[in-house]
Order: sequence, then C-alpha cells, then structure tokens
Amino acid sequence: MTQLSDINQMNMTTANTARLLITCEDKPGIVQAVSSFLYHQGANITALDQYATEAQGGRYFMRVEFELDHLQSRKDALIQTFAANVAERYGMQWRLAFVNEIKKVGILVSKVDHALLELLWRHARGSLPCEITHVISNHEDLRESVENFGIPFTVIKVTKDNKAEAYAQIDEMMQGNDLLVLARYMQILSEDFVAKWEMKIINIHHSFLPAFVGANPYKQAYEKGVKLIGATAHYVTADLDQGPIIEQDVERVSHDYNVEQLRELGEDVERNVLARAVKWHLEDRIIVDGNKTVVF
Amino acid sequence: MTQLSDINQMNMTTANTARLLITCEDKPGIVQAVSSFLYHQGANITALDQYATEAQGGRYFMRVEFELDHLQSRKDALIQTFAANVAERYGMQWRLAFVNEIKKVGILVSKVDHALLELLWRHARGSLPCEITHVISNHEDLRESVENFGIPFTVIKVTKDNKAEAYAQIDEMMQGNDLLVLARYMQILSEDFVAKWEMKIINIHHSFLPAFVGANPYKQAYEKGVKLIGATAHYVTADLDQGPIIEQDVERVSHDYNVEQLRELGEDVERNVLARAVKWHLEDRIIVDGNKTVVF
Amino acid sequence: MTQLSDINQMNMTTANTARLLITCEDKPGIVQAVSSFLYHQGANITALDQYATEAQGGRYFMRVEFELDHLQSRKDALIQTFAANVAERYGMQWRLAFVNEIKKVGILVSKVDHALLELLWRHARGSLPCEITHVISNHEDLRESVENFGIPFTVIKVTKDNKAEAYAQIDEMMQGNDLLVLARYMQILSEDFVAKWEMKIINIHHSFLPAFVGANPYKQAYEKGVKLIGATAHYVTADLDQGPIIEQDVERVSHDYNVEQLRELGEDVERNVLARAVKWHLEDRIIVDGNKTVVF
Amino acid sequence: MTQLSDINQMNMTTANTARLLITCEDKPGIVQAVSSFLYHQGANITALDQYATEAQGGRYFMRVEFELDHLQSRKDALIQTFAANVAERYGMQWRLAFVNEIKKVGILVSKVDHALLELLWRHARGSLPCEITHVISNHEDLRESVENFGIPFTVIKVTKDNKAEAYAQIDEMMQGNDLLVLARYMQILSEDFVAKWEMKIINIHHSFLPAFVGANPYKQAYEKGVKLIGATAHYVTADLDQGPIIEQDVERVSHDYNVEQLRELGEDVERNVLARAVKWHLEDRIIVDGNKTVVF
Repeated sequence: MTQLSDINQMNMTTANTARLLITCEDKPGIVQAVSSFLYHQGANITALDQYATEAQGGRYFMRVEFELDHLQSRKDALIQTFAANVAERYGMQWRLAFVNEIKKVGILVSKVDHALLELLWRHARGSLPCEITHVISNHEDLRESVENFGIPFTVIKVTKDNKAEAYAQIDEMMQGNDLLVLARYMQILSEDFVAKWEMKIINIHHSFLPAFVGANPYKQAYEKGVKLIGATAHYVTADLDQGPIIEQDVERVSHDYNVEQLRELGEDVERNVLARAVKWHLEDRIIVDGNKTVVF
Repeated sequence: MTQLSDINQMNMTTANTARLLITCEDKPGIVQAVSSFLYHQGANITALDQYATEAQGGRYFMRVEFELDHLQSRKDALIQTFAANVAERYGMQWRLAFVNEIKKVGILVSKVDHALLELLWRHARGSLPCEITHVISNHEDLRESVENFGIPFTVIKVTKDNKAEAYAQIDEMMQGNDLLVLARYMQILSEDFVAKWEMKIINIHHSFLPAFVGANPYKQAYEKGVKLIGATAHYVTADLDQGPIIEQDVERVSHDYNVEQLRELGEDVERNVLARAVKWHLEDRIIVDGNKTVVF
Repeated sequence: MTQLSDINQMNMTTANTARLLITCEDKPGIVQAVSSFLYHQGANITALDQYATEAQGGRYFMRVEFELDHLQSRKDALIQTFAANVAERYGMQWRLAFVNEIKKVGILVSKVDHALLELLWRHARGSLPCEITHVISNHEDLRESVENFGIPFTVIKVTKDNKAEAYAQIDEMMQGNDLLVLARYMQILSEDFVAKWEMKIINIHHSFLPAFVGANPYKQAYEKGVKLIGATAHYVTADLDQGPIIEQDVERVSHDYNVEQLRELGEDVERNVLARAVKWHLEDRIIVDGNKTVVF
Repeated sequence: MTQLSDINQMNMTTANTARLLITCEDKPGIVQAVSSFLYHQGANITALDQYATEAQGGRYFMRVEFELDHLQSRKDALIQTFAANVAERYGMQWRLAFVNEIKKVGILVSKVDHALLELLWRHARGSLPCEITHVISNHEDLRESVENFGIPFTVIKVTKDNKAEAYAQIDEMMQGNDLLVLARYMQILSEDFVAKWEMKIINIHHSFLPAFVGANPYKQAYEKGVKLIGATAHYVTADLDQGPIIEQDVERVSHDYNVEQLRELGEDVERNVLARAVKWHLEDRIIVDGNKTVVF
C-alpha cells in the first residue's frame, strides 16, 4: 500500500486544488478581499498563512490553498478575474499554482551521492511531488545510481574553456523545468545561467551559513572548533553562498570528531535540509523577500 | 531600555488589539465571513491562523488577531454584532480576548522551586503578559523566594482530612483568576476543584507523557534506560496526567546519568516547557479540541 | 575519492586494531590491570571508555580500543593471556573484537522500505562496516530494491501454521551471522528464535518507547496529541517492545499533522535511529546491562 | 530535601576526590603510567576520559577523577610524586584539582539580567559548585537583583578615559578568583586585563560563532534571514569573539520573528549555554587545545 505513488494519488485527488501566493504592501482588507473573491468563486479554503514584516505599513505575504470544483476548465477565467478584481487594487505580485501541474525538476551533481540519492529515493516513494527530468553531472561516477531509478543521466563537463557553452547546453536541456537543484554540485555556475534561473536554483551548502562560506566548510569547522555543524539550503544568486536561506539545521559534535567524521555526520544534515527545502519549493510554500525567504 | 516592562508597553500599545478564537464545524466561507466582518468594522488583521481536522467535514479552528480603533468603547457592540451576524450562522463556539485585559494567574507549588522561579523571573522581566496574584503552597519553604518578587505567598496545607475545605479555600483565594499553574505542585487536586477550573489549570509533568505516568518519572526513566528525558505541560482533567497536552520537549541523556542527574537536567526542560505553555495560554494561542490542543 | 569503500580501507589499516569489552563488579585497579596488560603486550590504546553504575560497589563496564603489531598472529595468545592474567582475577565477562573480522548482518523486512534502504545505502558507501549477507522478507515487494544493491533477497512467508518451520528456515539461512536487523519487520518472531539470537537482534520501533507500545504507534500518537514523535532502536527480547533500548530520537510535530504526515516524518527519525544503533553495534560500542544498554 | 545545598554535601563527601588533567604528546603507555601511579597510591578511579588529536603522534589529553583516602593530608606528596615519577617522563602539562577546594568566581555584567540571574539561581540551589565572590557592573541597574542573593554588588564605571584604572581596580577586587564570567558585559576588556586572566574568563556571545561576530548579532541574524539562532560560550582572548569555543546551542526560528523576538528567544539559549560552560569549567572538564577546547 505504501508502494502506491503519492503522485498518482495526487493526480486523482488534486485536480481541484490550487495555491495562491501573494506579496504586496500591507494594507487593511487583504484577507477580506482574497477570501471574498474565493468564496464567490465557490472555493473552499483548506490552508491560509499570512505574514507582515511590520505591525503596520510593511510588506505583506500570503499563501492560500483552496479547492474549487471544475478547476481545470476554470483556470484562465480565475486568473483573469483575480487579476482584475483583486490583485490590481492592492498592487500585488502574485501567482496561482495548480497542484496537479507537476513541477519539473533537474538536478546537477558532481561525485558525492548522498544529497542526490536522498532526493531520488524520496521521489521514488512519492514524497517529493515532482517529475525529475534529468540528472546532469560533470563526472561519470553516479550514472548507475541514477539510471537505477529510471532517470536520464548526462555528463556535461565544465572547464574554464567551455564554461559558456557548457551552461548553454545545460540551460537547453533544462528548458521547461521549474526548478534546478544543486545536490552538491562543485562547479560555480556562470553568471548568465544564474541570472536566467533566478530564484529557481536551490543549492545545499555544507555549513551553517553565514559561517564557513566557500570551500571546505567541514575543515573550517574543525579548525574553528565549533560544537555544532550544520547545513544550509538557499536559492542561488550571483553572490556565492549568499542567496536567500530556505532552511538550516545542525547536529551536535565534540572535540573528538575529525574532519572526516564531521563530513559524514554533516552529510546526514545536508540530506534532510535539502530534501525539506525542495519539498517546500514544490509545495509552493516559499516566497522570496529580498535576501530572505518567507516559508509558510 | 530592556528594563522597561513589556507589560507597560503593552498597556499603551495594545488597547486596540483583540484576538478572536473560533471552533466550529468546517464549512466553506468561514474565513470570508470572519474577515469581512472585521473589515467592515474597520479592523486590521495582524495575524490569522486556521486548522481543520479533515480535508472536508471535520472540525475547524481559527485564531485572528486584529487592531481596531477605539476598541475599548466598542467591545460590547463588537461582541453582539459578531454573535448575531457570524457566530450563529456557523454554530461557532468562540471568544474574543482583549489584549489589554491582563490575565490574572495564580500559582500552586510545593517545595521545589525551579518551575516557579522561571515563571516569576520571566514575569518580572515582562515576558509573561499577566498579573501573578498569589502563590499558594502546602509548605513554607519558598516564601522568601516569592516575596522577593513582591508577590503574596500563602501556605494552605492540604491533608487527607481537610482536602475539601483546603481546596474550597484555595478556590476562594483564586476567584477572579483566569489561570492556575501547578508549578510542581505535588498534591492531587480534589475532583470538585478540577471540575470548577476546567481547562484553566496547567500542570507540568516531569516526563514525556504518555511515558512514565504517575510518581517518580525520573526514577522510572532511569530504570527503563531511555536515551531522552522530557517534560509535558498539559491542562489538568479528572484523569491524572491525561489532560490535553500543550507542549513537550526532551533532552538527550546517556547510560551514565543517575536519577539525580536526570532530575537536574529534566528540571531545565520542565522550566522551558512550562514557560512556553503558560505564555501561549496568555497569548490566547491554545484551543482545546477534545483531549488534544490546537496551538496557533 | 569518496567512492572508495571504507571497508577496503579498513581491511588494510585495521588488521592491527582490536576492541576489548569488559563487564565486572567495580573494584579499584581495573584500569591499571587492563592498561598494564596491554602496555606489556606492546599495545597502543587509541580509545578508552568506562562506566560504573555506582560511586562504589556497582557494576563496571569498559571498552578499550587498541593497536598491536602483528595482531593477526597473536590473537589466540592474547586471548589466553588476558583470560589467565586479568579476566579471572576480576571475574570479568569480556570479549575481544578484531576490527578486521567484518561482522555479518542479515536483515528482515516486510513491505515498507525506508529503514532497509537507509541501511543498504549507508553500507554501499562504506559507512556501515559489515557484510550484509541476506535480506529476508515475507513479501516480494522489495526484491528489486535489494537486488539493485547486489544483495540476495529471499521471501520466507510466515503464517500461523508454518511459524516454527519458517523461523527454523530463517535461522538456518542466518547461520554464521553476527547480527539480525528488523528493519520494520511486521511479524512477531517465535520465542525459540528470539532465545537463540539473544541480544543479536536489533529492532526499530516507530515510537518513543515506552510510549505507544504495540501496533499503530503513529495512530496512537495522533490520538494522544503528543507534540513530539519518536523512534526507538532496541535489542529484541521475549517481551515485545521491551528489550534494552539502544537509541532514541524525536521530531517536533504540531496539531496539524495527520496520521500519514506523522508516519512520513517519523520514518526519517526511524531511519537515523536504526542506522546509528546498527553502527554502534558493529563498532562494538554497546554492552547490555540487564534491561538497559551502556553505549560507549 | 532538595533544599539541602549540594555544596555542603560536596564538602562532606568530596574531601577525598581529585581530578587530574593532562596534556602531552601522544605516546604508548600513558594510560598505564597514570593508572598504575594512582593504583599504587591506593586511589580508585571513578571517571576517565582521553582524547588524541591523531591516531598516532598527535597531542594527547586526559582527565581522571579518583578517590583517595586521607587525600587532604597527602596533597603535596601526591603532587611531588606524580611530577617526578610520571609527568616528567612524558613531558606532561598537567594539574591536579581538589574537588573540595571550591573555586571562586567573579561575574561582570552590564544591564541585561538573564545570564546573570541564571548563574545566581543555579548557584543558589547548589548546582554550580563554586563561591560567587562579587558581581561587578558598569551600571547600578542590577544591584537589587544581585543583593537579594546575598552577593556583593559593585559598580565600576569604565570610560575611555579611565579604562586602565578601572580594569586595575576590577583586577584587584578579583584577586584570588579562579574564574571571571562575562554575563553579557558590554565593555571591551583592556588587553592587559585579558592577558592577566588568560583562559580564566568565559564570555557568552549572543550568536552562533563564527557567524555574526561583533555588535547586534540578533539584528545581523534578522537581516540575514537565518532559520536558527544561537549562542556561544568561549574563553576570552585578545581577538574579540575569537577565543576557544566551549559550548554552543541553537533554537529554530522562522521568518516571522522580529529582532526583539529573536533576542527574547536567544536569551534562553544564552542562559543555558553559559550555565553549561561555567559548570564544565568548575568541574575541571575543559582543556584548552590551541584555539579549541577539549571538553570531557
């Protein structure tokens, strides 16, 4: 019974489910406006979260999940009516996500497999609601691991000389994807590529950022003698390791962990932190707020 | 600046703030009805949380915090209008809490001081928004500790023979209080007393319930060889240690903790768990759902 | 480089490493006796842990890891000398584990795969120092997952009618194994089988024991409204879910987790708790002390 | 019974207990040499921890707690014999701490009280085995809080102009103390003072170092959007916020914590982290290893 894919289940039961994500200036009446709109469409709100940066006059964020009969045939009308009747009035940035439009995800990876396999395994058992379209690596090492899951694996080597073409090629292969995940991908993406995929690339960094930016964070942690090690999932921006943080976690360590043991324990943290961040993105729970995230 | 009491600050800034707590059958339109009501009153919603026990047809819970100009003079009208226009239509159980009506709290305690002092200390620095009216104990031991905080301390000894009268006396002293806290009070309350203060008594139990019900939980934990010890804050009901759980937490231990060391570490967990539960109660974040709690 | 199996590495570098595990009555002089013995053999102590249940006169436990040149050819002499010169004097129960004698592990599983896959994956990347000889299930479902790792998979169906024979058959297949792991195996073992494999079977129970013994712990947790869910790895004894606890962990949940979401989150806890318990067993870190464990 | 001070209890039962702390180059035979020495003195080892930075040839650290009859009259002989017979041979840095020589602790504080009160309260109930000799502040604010505990409170204002004299005065008042604790002391100590009290000053920094060095770490954390906030207890060195880390911990936060809420939650982390670090120092559990600590 647990073998039954949640995705199939999802296709059957979620055709009528959508999520509305809103960012705007905070003003009185937004909840009323949105919930009245949905009520008059006949929708049933199943989840509602909101957040304002200040008690008054800050930025306002909202996520509403709702069910609406015959949603599939009403999508365009819904979008147009909401835009005209609600969004414009409040100057909202907003999007409507339809739960049965399964998101497409590509993964970039180098040689270490833990973060990748955690995603593939969670996907296989139905707990990451997406289609994984490709895994691209700069090395052959993980081909068999990936192909065992029935997912295409491609090697695109990136060197100093071919960087522009390599990322053009990756970009082309990833066309149509909603999200790219860097599952311990040890190359620095080209600026063009990052700009093109803005807020659509999630990276896992193997430290509790902003501590230990850059290379060899476990070695840095060892040398600093910290008593907790961590991992950080964040959106990728032009500033290396500085993009909006989605999720972080830590594990307690002591003086008698060497670098290798820190790495081994840390990889478990990385797996869980990345999996949570990707899941939240797929469930439309994250709104980017400047260099920070709101996670509903 | 941090010395300035949050309570004073609160009195000044929160006269216009209220919280609406709702329980009813889940039906479409509740958010719309509540938010429209508030909008037409001129209120600004500053926090909104909701929860339904089922996707469809379960129980529905909601907490809305809002600001409304001239709230103090509009309380009665607001209550009557909401009752007539919204609550009745949806068959709501509900209450409206006004943030500047500081809740009155009494504390019952025996001899150990850690849970009590944590509450008194947090209260003194303004992070528990309430008035602590009395501390009642069955022992003299903690008089000085309590009176140092400027809070009245009374000894009411409870014995087999005087149990009814003792709790009648405690009940009388606590008249007008909104909450009683058992901060490691080692007497079993009388049934009448519990019935009279239903869902208004919070107890801290020194185990991760439902493990280790009853006496000497740290000894039980030691003998069982558990690898985590915990504490549980719950509302008191007629069934000992079985009331709705508000908050729990644990700490990691190992084989080399003896009972006394488990107790010492556990007391830190108790302090934090109880303080969180009491704070959430004071902030009107808890709705009881049968034998469980919804904590917004 | 991370692809290189730690096990191969281990064979090369650990031929001279052994671990001595001791239980006896606590008396002065034990550390001196053991360390002098090892010193006069020419050994270098690389790790030493000890624990006494009481300040004086309790039970004493010790784990010493040491390196000794030419260990392989000196094993028998070492054992005999230690027995004669040290162990007898202190009435020690003891064993000497040679790190390059890779332990053999069999796994029993039913239909859910998370605990099993966690073990297979950690084993594949070299972080569980053992040989996994078989996976036996009462269902076909996980055959492909297991065989992908190159590990033999056998179905042995257990019914009311064939219980004795089925476990005789499992026992026969597992001959020569050092450890059996129940990676969410939903059958109750026969008494004979448990007796025969005493303190050599590790089970993962999907609750924070002693809370929620028996079937459907996530449903029990949901109905009780606990704020943390957990998992417990323990040695299997004749008393169901009552054997010595090796490791436990918990995750925070709230009122809005349904049973299925508790199960999904709980499975992540189970994976980690079981993996740690198995690893500690393989590293000879666990000494059973009555119904408790000492984990060094 | 819990009212009985652990310190008095300690004086009675620990006159015969000592702790030996050792740092040296790692060589075979150290455990044997130390345990044989103690055995021939007639001591009973009650705790033993060791750590080597490398498998072979690194630095070696050891902590042994033992009981020895008539210890009080044998102190000098014990020290001399150990120095001559063991320490010299291995080139050990070492010290012998006698548990009934209660350590003297001074506290420096500014205006916020949480870290100070946590220490005073734990001390009052006997769980910090020390004498608190003075609390010195640059402000009057906390006088009453401190004097309620029966501990002398002195104001020594530090300004740009009197810095040298002020710290000379503090130094004089603290003569004979074993430890100074900066319980949120917002002045930067003079270099001379730091040099004089090397590895005898513990500070609590209100961030997870090395993240958010310097002023306003909660504001820095808010602006960075981290998902965990933390605190770090460390020995003070000439490099601000860079001394050897003793203990760290974190708490989970989300986007909807403002700076003030981060501060309030963080103060609970600070209290616990500082209390643990001070306790470990008092129990002679910490050995400094360059810019790191070994905590046994």
